[in-house]
Amino acid sequence: MNPKEQPDQDFAGISPAEFFYRNRQMAGFGNPTQAVYSTVRELIENSLDACEDAGRPPMVTLSTVAEDANTITITVEDNGSGLPYDEVAQAFGRVLYGSKYERRQRRGTFGLGVTMAILYGQITTDSPVFVHTQSSEGPGREYGLLIDIENNSPIVVSEAAQDRCSLGTSVSISLKGDIKRAQDRIVDYLRLTTVGTPNARIAFDINGEIQGSFGPWTSEMARQSIPVKPHPRAVDLELLRRLLKEFRGDTIHDFLVASFQQLGVRTASKLLAFMGIDPKIPTEALTRQDYSRLCQGMRHFNGFSSPDGRCLSPIGEVPFIRGVSSVFNPSLLSYTRQGVFEWEGNPVILEGVLALGDAFPPADTPTLYRLANRVPLLYDASEDVLTKVVKQVNWRRYGFSKPQPVGLFLNVSSTRIPYRAAGKQSLAHISEIEEGASLLLKSLGRFLNGKISSSGAASRNRRKRREYSELIGIVAKYSSALAGYDSPPSTGPIVNKLFEVGEDE
Amino acid sequence: MNPKEQPDQDFAGISPAEFFYRNRQMAGFGNPTQAVYSTVRELIENSLDACEDAGRPPMVTLSTVAEDANTITITVEDNGSGLPYDEVAQAFGRVLYGSKYERRQRRGTFGLGVTMAILYGQITTDSPVFVHTQSSEGPGREYGLLIDIENNSPIVVSEAAQDRCSLGTSVSISLKGDIKRAQDRIVDYLRLTTVGTPNARIAFDINGEIQGSFGPWTSEMARQSIPVKPHPRAVDLELLRRLLKEFRGDTIHDFLVASFQQLGVRTASKLLAFMGIDPKIPTEALTRQDYSRLCQGMRHFNGFSSPDGRCLSPIGEVPFIRGVSSVFNPSLLSYTRQGVFEWEGNPVILEGVLALGDAFPPADTPTLYRLANRVPLLYDASEDVLTKVVKQVNWRRYGFSKPQPVGLFLNVSSTRIPYRAAGKQSLAHISEIEEGASLLLKSLGRFLNGKISSSGAASRNRRKRREYSELIGIVAKYSSALAGYDSPPSTGPIVNKLFEVGEDE
Repeated sequence: MNPKEQPDQDFAGISPAEFFYRNRQMAGFGNPTQAVYSTVRELIENSLDACEDAGRPPMVTLSTVAEDANTITITVEDNGSGLPYDEVAQAFGRVLYGSKYERRQRRGTFGLGVTMAILYGQITTDSPVFVHTQSSEGPGREYGLLIDIENNSPIVVSEAAQDRCSLGTSVSISLKGDIKRAQDRIVDYLRLTTVGTPNARIAFDINGEIQGSFGPWTSEMARQSIPVKPHPRAVDLELLRRLLKEFRGDTIHDFLVASFQQLGVRTASKLLAFMGIDPKIPTEALTRQDYSRLCQGMRHFNGFSSPDGRCLSPIGEVPFIRGVSSVFNPSLLSYTRQGVFEWEGNPVILEGVLALGDAFPPADTPTLYRLANRVPLLYDASEDVLTKVVKQVNWRRYGFSKPQPVGLFLNVSSTRIPYRAAGKQSLAHISEIEEGASLLLKSLGRFLNGKISSSGAASRNRRKRREYSELIGIVAKYSSALAGYDSPPSTGPIVNKLFEVGEDE
Repeated sequence: MNPKEQPDQDFAGISPAEFFYRNRQMAGFGNPTQAVYSTVRELIENSLDACEDAGRPPMVTLSTVAEDANTITITVEDNGSGLPYDEVAQAFGRVLYGSKYERRQRRGTFGLGVTMAILYGQITTDSPVFVHTQSSEGPGREYGLLIDIENNSPIVVSEAAQDRCSLGTSVSISLKGDIKRAQDRIVDYLRLTTVGTPNARIAFDINGEIQGSFGPWTSEMARQSIPVKPHPRAVDLELLRRLLKEFRGDTIHDFLVASFQQLGVRTASKLLAFMGIDPKIPTEALTRQDYSRLCQGMRHFNGFSSPDGRCLSPIGEVPFIRGVSSVFNPSLLSYTRQGVFEWEGNPVILEGVLALGDAFPPADTPTLYRLANRVPLLYDASEDVLTKVVKQVNWRRYGFSKPQPVGLFLNVSSTRIPYRAAGKQSLAHISEIEEGASLLLKSLGRFLNGKISSSGAASRNRRKRREYSELIGIVAKYSSALAGYDSPPSTGPIVNKLFEVGEDE
């Protein structure tokens, strides 16, 4: 028997569309409730990215229409700049295709989410996605698209001019899904989205039954993230090889300066001396051993500055506080920030807002609201690294000797969010993020401690003192009467001593 | 401005290799410890599948060698039938390529795991994977392979004849990784692997420091799973279209009978009547509306039998009990099974073993050991549906009024395991699996209840009675002496009355 003729060995490749079709629970499409939620979420995030790229405050509209008992059409419309016509089919009809592969912060990063929603719609209702896009020059056009799953390529089923009065993109997906069970989460998600993006207005109409809008809470524009070169500590052999392929210069010294951030002429000389590599070697003369030495050296040299944070777009103190205030109306709140720090050469900024107010259920630890690149994460909290850090803090030390109504909002900004799964619901246990969050929580905790004792604890204390005063007054009155005194002694100093307060309080 | 010339819109597609390279934490390669563990795991599972396909009891050897402080070479060798030479490069050098896309139970299903390990090795050490394979006819060959990540295709760097004395495949991967931190988990994993595959022998040598082997605990061969046709309730529009494309017959009636399991001539007629479709319609005449009606009808018709379980390979009562007994040496144990039941047309069998013994830490609920298609899942337990079900049970009802040393082993067998992420560590919340597991636990719990009270509680009671007897005897002796009696009265009846037992106990 020739090896080719072995039995039961039927080898084949599958496309990434096929992979996610078979394993759709990994991408957030595991059941009809989750599918509706994920579809809304992916469309909203796509729209917010488009508006921010256009430099406009996002105006996003979500509307859903029930087609029958379990079929729903979900439409999300934005005021971005529209899409180039010749990219529409690929961008919506091909998994792992998109405009978001630069090294800067975006909500979407995989070119996966919206395509998964389209794919799910297609396999459950046989309907194409309808994408309308209008840019500043051309008249609008509408495309109907299906996905050829086996080949991971788009099928254009319709294409027509359709002019609308404003710029932007609108996407309509019909799918089998359970909107009734998803709608509360969706409204929560939209509300929290405007905490992460406080200059956005998000209007919604769910089956004509639930209508409303959130935001904008500020007119301030978020800092636009700009693409940056990779940090030297982000290097691996694959990245090094790619950068060398792109390099159009001569020596290794020039290559380092041209290809990396935080690597100027002087740092490059120091680094090469550290590695014992001649700075004049032409990159073409590098051997495979040199590649390995370079990677090792760049990861271990400690003369680099932290990664450039300009590729990030944190929420910012004033907008974040305004977002939380507008949505949750707390009585007290505090903002803190950690970073820029790094994991594997990726810059990270952590922002936290701690808020005290009746909107939060009293609990032994603060109620955690997670955001990553401004996107609220509502599922899979228990495995998230942020949840782990919140659990590690001794909250009793910060005034949680009894349940407190406190909300904790954490936003992680990075060029690479370490999602645990393609459904983007929780963050992996990256030790640098864990340490950063731990520092952030300590600083927020200290703020809280003072505030709880000066509000909750202090007012409890005052009430107790009043009650004691009354009781001791009564005891003093009757016991002095029994003892035959005319008037009871003054009990004030005793009570004050008991409660360790001065005479002035 | 033409839409094509819009700024900062640089569209591109990425290969699945690139996707998982960028998001390696999703596939279990998020840090050096996890990377070592996942590499071992993926290689072992690949080998076990190969041996079972060959119909031989698996003999698998894991050996690791420390190349330097943080570089390790991991080699796994099996006694399978070897691979066809012309598939080696694709099978190991291409993500989402493999022999495992049939509808039957396998450990590996994605064509992802081993390729990810190879990719991780390549980007951290620049070393190719070395694959040696020898089948019954040809002489052995060894291949050195790298992955072209951008194009998701293999690069063969070396190929040479190399004859060995026995059949099988051996794979060697060098990677940067932390074996010291991973080794306890690895040994746990290997041990539990022989619970799931009790006829396997797994020998290991970790850096010459930790050596040993587990199994085989039985010589019984596992039932070999056979590929089956899809169940009608597994249908979606994509699957329907593919099956129609493959169909070489004429009418819709013939198509249904030929393409699905549990759909004989009579059921097909009933189903078509239920949907109001003429059984004589040629499949070519079907419209898109018909496709939708077919899908809907097949999902809602309730005349189908449960899915065929022959495509599954559960552990089985005797081997499972033997595996748990050999590894954990419990004093008591019980096996139960649920199914074949189904989720989305996929057959599922759940097996559980509950064991009482000193190997398990006393706790308020049983210590859970999860397996899926015989593979132990050691990470990410807290989000797993099985963990959820264990938490929902009121274990106090089954004798857990105080902590008990009980282990609970659950194995889920299915053609489609709903992993939450590509790293395959925990199961999504599929309601059918939840219900099945819940029934299984109740049945196991009832077994336990009797056993704990007749073993633990009863033996505690006997000990207490002995102690009371002694004490009361002493009291009786000295007080009767004090009172001047010659001999103390009999205390047995008093103690028995106190412990509510008859004279005979």
